[in-house]
Amino acid sequence: MFLKFQNHFSTQFPFLQKAKILIAVSGGLDSMVLLDLISKMNVEFAVAHCNFQLRGDESNEDEHFVQSYCTSNSIKGFFQKFDTKQFAEDEKLSFQVAARKLRYEWFYELLATENFDFVLTAHHLDDQLETFLINLSRGTGLEGLCGIPSQNDKIIRPLLHFSRAEIETFAKENNLKWREDSSNASDKYVRNKIRHQLVPVLKELNPSFLDSFENTLQNLNQTQSLVDDASRMVYRKVVQDVDHQKIINLNELLQLPNYQAYLFQWLSPFGFSAWLDIYDLVNAQSGKQIFSEHFRLLKNRNTLIVETKSTEISSEYFIHEHQDELNFPLKLRLISVCEIGKSDAKTIFVDAEALKFPLQLRNWQEGDYFYPFGMNGKKKLSKFFKDEKFSIIDKEKAWLLCSDNQIVWLVGKRMDERFKVTENTQTILKIQLV
Amino acid sequence: MFLKFQNHFSTQFPFLQKAKILIAVSGGLDSMVLLDLISKMNVEFAVAHCNFQLRGDESNEDEHFVQSYCTSNSIKGFFQKFDTKQFAEDEKLSFQVAARKLRYEWFYELLATENFDFVLTAHHLDDQLETFLINLSRGTGLEGLCGIPSQNDKIIRPLLHFSRAEIETFAKENNLKWREDSSNASDKYVRNKIRHQLVPVLKELNPSFLDSFENTLQNLNQTQSLVDDASRMVYRKVVQDVDHQKIINLNELLQLPNYQAYLFQWLSPFGFSAWLDIYDLVNAQSGKQIFSEHFRLLKNRNTLIVETKSTEISSEYFIHEHQDELNFPLKLRLISVCEIGKSDAKTIFVDAEALKFPLQLRNWQEGDYFYPFGMNGKKKLSKFFKDEKFSIIDKEKAWLLCSDNQIVWLVGKRMDERFKVTENTQTILKIQLV
Repeated sequence: MFLKFQNHFSTQFPFLQKAKILIAVSGGLDSMVLLDLISKMNVEFAVAHCNFQLRGDESNEDEHFVQSYCTSNSIKGFFQKFDTKQFAEDEKLSFQVAARKLRYEWFYELLATENFDFVLTAHHLDDQLETFLINLSRGTGLEGLCGIPSQNDKIIRPLLHFSRAEIETFAKENNLKWREDSSNASDKYVRNKIRHQLVPVLKELNPSFLDSFENTLQNLNQTQSLVDDASRMVYRKVVQDVDHQKIINLNELLQLPNYQAYLFQWLSPFGFSAWLDIYDLVNAQSGKQIFSEHFRLLKNRNTLIVETKSTEISSEYFIHEHQDELNFPLKLRLISVCEIGKSDAKTIFVDAEALKFPLQLRNWQEGDYFYPFGMNGKKKLSKFFKDEKFSIIDKEKAWLLCSDNQIVWLVGKRMDERFKVTENTQTILKIQLV
Repeated sequence: MFLKFQNHFSTQFPFLQKAKILIAVSGGLDSMVLLDLISKMNVEFAVAHCNFQLRGDESNEDEHFVQSYCTSNSIKGFFQKFDTKQFAEDEKLSFQVAARKLRYEWFYELLATENFDFVLTAHHLDDQLETFLINLSRGTGLEGLCGIPSQNDKIIRPLLHFSRAEIETFAKENNLKWREDSSNASDKYVRNKIRHQLVPVLKELNPSFLDSFENTLQNLNQTQSLVDDASRMVYRKVVQDVDHQKIINLNELLQLPNYQAYLFQWLSPFGFSAWLDIYDLVNAQSGKQIFSEHFRLLKNRNTLIVETKSTEISSEYFIHEHQDELNFPLKLRLISVCEIGKSDAKTIFVDAEALKFPLQLRNWQEGDYFYPFGMNGKKKLSKFFKDEKFSIIDKEKAWLLCSDNQIVWLVGKRMDERFKVTENTQTILKIQLV
């Protein structure tokens, strides 16, 4: 069994041999198998464990389990507690989505600050199938049926080709220990129903169902790439990007018999979902508009215009010297401190003398770049957004704190290397997002 | 319940009110409900029943059931017996595929010869779902998940929006009688497993699952239209159509990161399926080739060429006056007869004096047209092929019997109006495909 895994790893991910790897370990069956497999492969790796604090003692026991495993095997571990409930409430997300967001944000942070090349997660083929069936049961589209990719930028899922049964066999053969998989009760109810009632029937209908399903996923993903091509090719003909507006030329658009499909592709990333209204808007009178949470879609003569809601239109705000608070559009607090404290997503410490007042707070613009803290060299903000999987909405909501138009802080995400506290720093300014 | 159906019909298919309709009636629940609904709508209609002779007495009893229903309700009925087993064997098809082919070919024939505007079939939403799950269980791609459309050219499926439960409720409310659905045993086993074991779980997970599923299908179909767009747009850039060859420019193709997905789209209609070999062929040496049943794919310098296998390359064969048989490439028998007999797909009767010998037998060419028997006026052969749902392979295999380059007979499919026997005919020639 080990050979089968190892062969797959070395043919599909040969570059892992020389990489510095971070393994996401919940303590469940799948991630403990992944950890064991990687341990046996003589590569440089560490463990990252998220404690989402959603299941009280159990969550803490999972953390202790992974901690003591790391200690007894001399593995470097990173452990992070998240106030997932609070975050979910603040961001109006389900616990699951909130946990996923927190998890991947932290992974990307570790990638950058600790110089890992890749994060490995232990998703497997049955996970793919269960997600496919969950999405099908709720109603979905092609994207909901495509599954997650085995490599997406720096996230790698080396077990995606294997079934739960294979992983379990390996765990038993190797006397591995694990904790029961962490997932909240309602998700567990759905997954269990699918796992124990749907999947067995599909396997009865076709004994090699999982293999067929893997082919199906491959086909669907290839198809998805054609959809992306069509969307992009037609976009270039029909849509004009002007500043923060996207202007859809209806004369061009309406020549396409399937123009609704294109509107769907282009507008759903902006959070629009009232499709029937949107399809009506095409023929509505000039001036009519439809809103998503952060954007509006405006019928204007022979065009549809997508733009941020007017209250959110890009503006600049200033922080003057000795000003110790900003209240709008964000609440920031600035304090001179004597020594550097614990920095996190919401708190940074900068070299006050490197700043030129007034500081500006503004939205990002095409062409913005910065020197992300913990990285060598500069990076275009657009690239940073892409690597960190910012959605269009995340990007529009992002605020930059700037000094003389140099980015000091992508607020709440990452500070700039150029303004960090060094041994030569005389005055430290603590800036806090409240 | 009747109103619900009626509203749907009149909003979605308003043109049916004034159309001449042919209803496909198996005698099962679904088609008897459709027949009853249409009967109550005051439109001109008739019934078509296929007896596939696959279930012995049962098949005949179904036919008698529909016949006697038509008689007692004064409905015009068309009844056709098919030797489905023989046809399936000859064409190397499964019984199911053979039956489908026979059914739709006959429907299109009736449409043309009896001047119907549309054929209605009784497929419903649960059929869609079951087909989706059958295809999923076997392994599939987007096309296998898209279901059948509610309108496809002249085939209309007005019940596609309704569930089996709704249809059954209507049947009971209206005291309808029906025969148990005809389907072969192995198909029944699979459908029953899906119907009784899979679908109920999906409905437990989401009580409005069928509605969600209908949305899913809509989304997938919209997406499929984008796939078709991408395939067509890129085809125009990368492929040259020259005579009977398609020449794929590899220099252009290989610039696309997802070129395999395009090859899949373009080549599967030609019956190719050895995808790994085909993807290798792209980088193979000039002269290497791969075959499907009727086509070959040739690597030639910086191109891939799709063409018919060399033995099948378009040729002309001649039938001279008084020649009573042709043995190659088809076996045709020609006999002078005194009076016209029963003509069918394989037997035609023509006015011998209208013919100019030698007759030619050849493949079709772009620009060919004929006067399909039973229709007014002429029709391009390409349009005829399209309406009759000829596949690329069907088209390449089609033979034309011509007189002075006018089409006399699309062999085995349809004769030409210009050569039919009239009251002025002196000599009748019977031509038979043996």
